[in-house]
Amino acid sequence: MVWCTKLPNIPVYNNSEMLGRYYEEFKINRKTGESNLTEIYLMEGLDFILRQTKARRPFFLYWAPDATHAPVYASKRFLGKSQRGRYGDAVMELDYSIGQILSWLQTLGIDNNTFVFFTSDNGAALISAPNEGGSNGPFLCGKQTTFEGGMREPAIAWWPGHIKEGTVSFQLANVMDLFTTSLALAGVSPPNDRTLDGLDLTPVLLNRSHTLQNRPIFYYRGNELMAVRLGQYKAHYWTWSNSWEEFKKGINFCPGQEIPDVTTHEQKEHTMQPIIFHLGRDPGEKFPISVLSKEYHDVLSRISPVVEQHKKTLVPGAPQLNMCDVAVMNWAPAGCEKLGKCLKVPKSEPWKCDWPH
Amino acid sequence: MVWCTKLPNIPVYNNSEMLGRYYEEFKINRKTGESNLTEIYLMEGLDFILRQTKARRPFFLYWAPDATHAPVYASKRFLGKSQRGRYGDAVMELDYSIGQILSWLQTLGIDNNTFVFFTSDNGAALISAPNEGGSNGPFLCGKQTTFEGGMREPAIAWWPGHIKEGTVSFQLANVMDLFTTSLALAGVSPPNDRTLDGLDLTPVLLNRSHTLQNRPIFYYRGNELMAVRLGQYKAHYWTWSNSWEEFKKGINFCPGQEIPDVTTHEQKEHTMQPIIFHLGRDPGEKFPISVLSKEYHDVLSRISPVVEQHKKTLVPGAPQLNMCDVAVMNWAPAGCEKLGKCLKVPKSEPWKCDWPH
Repeated sequence: MVWCTKLPNIPVYNNSEMLGRYYEEFKINRKTGESNLTEIYLMEGLDFILRQTKARRPFFLYWAPDATHAPVYASKRFLGKSQRGRYGDAVMELDYSIGQILSWLQTLGIDNNTFVFFTSDNGAALISAPNEGGSNGPFLCGKQTTFEGGMREPAIAWWPGHIKEGTVSFQLANVMDLFTTSLALAGVSPPNDRTLDGLDLTPVLLNRSHTLQNRPIFYYRGNELMAVRLGQYKAHYWTWSNSWEEFKKGINFCPGQEIPDVTTHEQKEHTMQPIIFHLGRDPGEKFPISVLSKEYHDVLSRISPVVEQHKKTLVPGAPQLNMCDVAVMNWAPAGCEKLGKCLKVPKSEPWKCDWPH
Repeated sequence: MVWCTKLPNIPVYNNSEMLGRYYEEFKINRKTGESNLTEIYLMEGLDFILRQTKARRPFFLYWAPDATHAPVYASKRFLGKSQRGRYGDAVMELDYSIGQILSWLQTLGIDNNTFVFFTSDNGAALISAPNEGGSNGPFLCGKQTTFEGGMREPAIAWWPGHIKEGTVSFQLANVMDLFTTSLALAGVSPPNDRTLDGLDLTPVLLNRSHTLQNRPIFYYRGNELMAVRLGQYKAHYWTWSNSWEEFKKGINFCPGQEIPDVTTHEQKEHTMQPIIFHLGRDPGEKFPISVLSKEYHDVLSRISPVVEQHKKTLVPGAPQLNMCDVAVMNWAPAGCEKLGKCLKVPKSEPWKCDWPH
């Protein structure tokens, strides 16, 4: 894949207006890791909640700090405070900030009326580990792969008086469910002109004994169905960590983890005979179940029709990642002129590019 | 190392009398994994506690079930109950049994007067994983190595009314401390004719703010000091997972984990330039700190005098693992004659053998 070397620094918005540019106006001291950006986000969040509450308006807040993404940063008061270096300091500030938000909801007396859901979009990026990235514990590889280290995330749901505290659920879910669940919580019917992949999780969240037991999870990279999870089993139809080209340059998505035939550096097809793991007894995807075993055949005979059904009913969206154009970037977003921060937009030169992730 | 092929099955004792032989009289169904051995141990433990309590005798109970060691087993009621296969079932029964012991102490009204400590002697044996072994999460390798997966263990201390529930301590400790700690709890002075390596942990256990901050941990295999931990840093003076000979036969102490120069298959010396990890930001021992960095030199200058002092003051015990003799085995233990279970003791033929673990 060709990529241009010079890209505009990412703008920071307030609604649709550009406020400045990330790590130019919103400073990160790359040497010490100091930045008060998470603090700014926290203040914005608390202020938004306050304004909505005063106006007695129901609200939806998507609070997405990026402090644990490289370059990792934290406010001065958290730097050097964790046992986990700069990454730990960032997590500590994130944890503190969530605590502030929850306590703010309690102070305003709207905690029994506010559903809070906390999760991450992907596992730790091991190419940034250990100084600027997290750990995926026993799970294989990290961000940008469809192994458990890239995809499996815990989540916390909080709603005093509705969700019993300390309850643990083994329900499999994915971020697409949040749309459907949010609609259900708001009492809104989902659109019926399309098929929604997300399920309504409220029965599970509000009733600890309820489970959506047989819901499969599909793992994609780009348009390719890489793997499927059903219950405790996961079948890999394609394997790939990263390219030999990247790998030879020292970029490693699975440092210290090499599973023969699994963490492959070419996109390897196994559709005729998927590699199957039991994630209960082998969460690290290290011990493929023998294709000669009864267990393998039993599992495959349950997973195959699920995959077939999925492929038959899936309506592919228009691919959004098969054309590249350096002009389509954040060169001159709305508001940049007020700040004198508009950059010269290069000539539009779209080219066909493949984004096989 | 030479080893004989035929060894007696391990005897099970009650005090010094043999009761029978492990998995001959104390059956393990190797196909289903069913055995009531943990149940028998539990009943023995509960009965012992009851008898001591009725006689108003203080007691020390060392309750060491082996159900999570291969061959893994569980009682019928736990088989197939966990999400983690047979190993999980064994852990579930272990957890249940500990619960029974704690609740028994409460029932007898001696819980405020009984100190309970729970831990393991080593990390999961990955050669038995996943069906008959645990997982060491993010930690490197497993049992039989001096990497964190072999040596690092959590522990739980329980003493209602004395230890605050839910408290988490980051204190580094090791099993040698339990002797010294037990003496302190019993109000007995330690023997003063020798140096004890274990420290008294009671200040840490009873006062959550107290720490024994700079206590080093020494990692041995046989007589060889393999590594030293000081605070968050660990320096490897020797590295070794297992031998090439074993490894080529398919025995792997670190399946799916290969760290160049670290998980070596020869006993590799690094005493002139130890490999140093920061376990806080790199608990998996995957990213050696650069020997060219200031951090490396600062840490080494703190660890080196600790190692020097340790080597200077250490009084080596007589090695107990450098002679082998098949006659010195559990062929005819006390009580075997009553059971008709004495085996013919082979001729004593001691030979010099090396046990480099």
